[in-house]
Amino acid sequence: MLEAKTERIRKDIETMAGFTATPGKGMTRFSFSKEDRMTRDYIASEMKGAGLTVFEDAAGNLFGRREGTVPGAPAVMIGSHFDSVKNGGAFDGPAGVVMGLEIARVLQENGIAAEHPLEFAALVEEEGARFGGGLYGSRAMTGKVTREALDTFKDRDGVSAAEAMKAFGFDPDKIGEAVRPKGSLKAFIEMHIEQGPILESGGTDLGLVKTIVGISQREVEILGRPDHAGTTPMDMRCNALTAAAEAVLFLDRAAKEAAGGTVGTVGRMEVFPGGANIVPGRVFFTIDVRSVYMEKLEQVTGSFAAFLKELEKKHGVTISVTDKLTVRPVEMSAEILGLFEAEAAKRSYTSKVMQSGAGHDAMIMASAADVGLVFVPSKGGRSHCPEEWTDYGQIKKGVDVVLGAVLSLAKTAV
Amino acid sequence: MLEAKTERIRKDIETMAGFTATPGKGMTRFSFSKEDRMTRDYIASEMKGAGLTVFEDAAGNLFGRREGTVPGAPAVMIGSHFDSVKNGGAFDGPAGVVMGLEIARVLQENGIAAEHPLEFAALVEEEGARFGGGLYGSRAMTGKVTREALDTFKDRDGVSAAEAMKAFGFDPDKIGEAVRPKGSLKAFIEMHIEQGPILESGGTDLGLVKTIVGISQREVEILGRPDHAGTTPMDMRCNALTAAAEAVLFLDRAAKEAAGGTVGTVGRMEVFPGGANIVPGRVFFTIDVRSVYMEKLEQVTGSFAAFLKELEKKHGVTISVTDKLTVRPVEMSAEILGLFEAEAAKRSYTSKVMQSGAGHDAMIMASAADVGLVFVPSKGGRSHCPEEWTDYGQIKKGVDVVLGAVLSLAKTAV
Repeated sequence: MLEAKTERIRKDIETMAGFTATPGKGMTRFSFSKEDRMTRDYIASEMKGAGLTVFEDAAGNLFGRREGTVPGAPAVMIGSHFDSVKNGGAFDGPAGVVMGLEIARVLQENGIAAEHPLEFAALVEEEGARFGGGLYGSRAMTGKVTREALDTFKDRDGVSAAEAMKAFGFDPDKIGEAVRPKGSLKAFIEMHIEQGPILESGGTDLGLVKTIVGISQREVEILGRPDHAGTTPMDMRCNALTAAAEAVLFLDRAAKEAAGGTVGTVGRMEVFPGGANIVPGRVFFTIDVRSVYMEKLEQVTGSFAAFLKELEKKHGVTISVTDKLTVRPVEMSAEILGLFEAEAAKRSYTSKVMQSGAGHDAMIMASAADVGLVFVPSKGGRSHCPEEWTDYGQIKKGVDVVLGAVLSLAKTAV
Repeated sequence: MLEAKTERIRKDIETMAGFTATPGKGMTRFSFSKEDRMTRDYIASEMKGAGLTVFEDAAGNLFGRREGTVPGAPAVMIGSHFDSVKNGGAFDGPAGVVMGLEIARVLQENGIAAEHPLEFAALVEEEGARFGGGLYGSRAMTGKVTREALDTFKDRDGVSAAEAMKAFGFDPDKIGEAVRPKGSLKAFIEMHIEQGPILESGGTDLGLVKTIVGISQREVEILGRPDHAGTTPMDMRCNALTAAAEAVLFLDRAAKEAAGGTVGTVGRMEVFPGGANIVPGRVFFTIDVRSVYMEKLEQVTGSFAAFLKELEKKHGVTISVTDKLTVRPVEMSAEILGLFEAEAAKRSYTSKVMQSGAGHDAMIMASAADVGLVFVPSKGGRSHCPEEWTDYGQIKKGVDVVLGAVLSLAKTAV
């Protein structure tokens, strides 16, 4: 049986971990940044070394392609994203990109010919850490990013995605060219760290995902009135922060009441003008709600929107809400899940069919291809933090299972 | 009767309003900044023009001195501060500094000789907007700033007050030299905008302050654990922001329940790491509590501290609190208040004896001298915002009343 080499996986991960904007404070690799460029160059170099034809699409995604023996056959795409959150870990994203690199190397060194072309993908802006939307690379490939959106989505410095792309050498006006033609993709397979405690606590090697949660992300702005904190009586204030505090607690309660694994989070909040002796006049915050049940997602976001209306009356503030992302729960391909199960069994790796509480590019790609998603264990369930860790040997097991599934899907003689 | 000239007051205020780090977005004049330097140079130039001897003390306060006719007599000090909050207004502080400049000019052009020396003061870092403590200039003059504190108090970039002073040309090791010797000050008179709605709504020219509120300021840090917002179940989180939201609402309720004009505010809050899809692992915020009743101040801060202990248990977070400022309520001098009332009556200005909800340098100076504090009306009660406004004619009336009181206190022949 063909198998991955742990040592090469280790080298890839450690090299990419060096390309961070916050050395010593975890991975900060925002899209279209200097760190993006360094990582991109490394991945492209490894792809070339594995005999792949390297290209970038109009959205900024990076690919290495290996042609198939049957002309015009749809491609099997393999990979994940390589951007990170702020002060995140070295595995979220890169584990799946490295999976692709390693499979390409194994195919090359064994001279494997497949009927279907294979594409090894390194996608951008999955986290949305810079521009706020997330899953951008896969959305661009599936026609879900408009030219207008590139002007609308801006980073904290007010730089739009379009401006950042231009500065990086991409043409935002060509975003439509990133869309993959209907029928051109046979499958999309992603490997990712679990980012939760289930696999490690059960001593399980691999998670084989059946359903990915639906996600709703919103940005909320509350406008009150900035006043002197000493001379403005409590009953004459329009305090944006007390209104925001009530919203934070409401969302927390609503997610708990919805149950069934539903989660709701305010992860980012900014308070203006931000003086100790000034009543806050403006608060900006994000909400993130997830569930595998669409009706629970709608229940939480709906009751939250209604609660904001109440807050406007109660606090004399004005509240505006911007939709950043809405994705329905998505089922993975039963056929590919079956291939994973068979490969794991063949190699005596333990596996578990499970759900994903995190959104992944596989969720978006499901509209364009059959998708499969494999999880490898996260130490302590931790992710999006510098402590994020997966043993290299565990990553190797995930690569092996995807490798086996890809050999079947792409039709090889092995 | 001697009186101030409105046109000169207008010119002073408008000139100083130009020295802001945020043009078009209100006044941002932090201590020991470029804008501080420009303002300081202007004030010193006006002082020299009015025949004053200009000097700076070791803390960074700026003074213009006019000697008295009786050798060794204690000085009458007049003025206010010239720093601002972030994105504040052009009157909070400068109105009282300009009051001093204008009185100096009136004395010079009328050749007035006084028995007591007069000192015209422009104090620094009253707002605490840069280093967090506030009332720094007056605290330095009254021996309430230690050399160690200059290392402890830091701005948002981590620059300590000591470092900022050095870069600006002051020697923090000499901070003790800023202390005014016991008995060297006969009186301290400040004029300030009201920063509240009382004078304007009552059509009253001047507020004559009887008591200044006590203030407690604290900094609070809540440490939870940053986790992935999608894969971490609600019941396994240590969410620093939900804990902070409860604290915000508790303080608001506690201040309302204490009544008697007590106010409580969370004005600054920062959430880390600040990603939309990360459970907040750390939140920093300030609290500001004020009351003219010491027992209410203690009641609110005490119950808040007890509530934080409950939050630690409930949310599994760790909370630390740093005291930044505690000042007891302070009574102004009855004699000087009487002089103000007589002067206002003599000039047919309407006045009202009142309390101050804002802390002022006069509060600190009360430990070293008899103090007086005059308020002029704030349009719409607004302050600490770009819309802050007081009509120049109203400022002139305040200057006139202080001028009259100073002539009495400093013993002149007028």
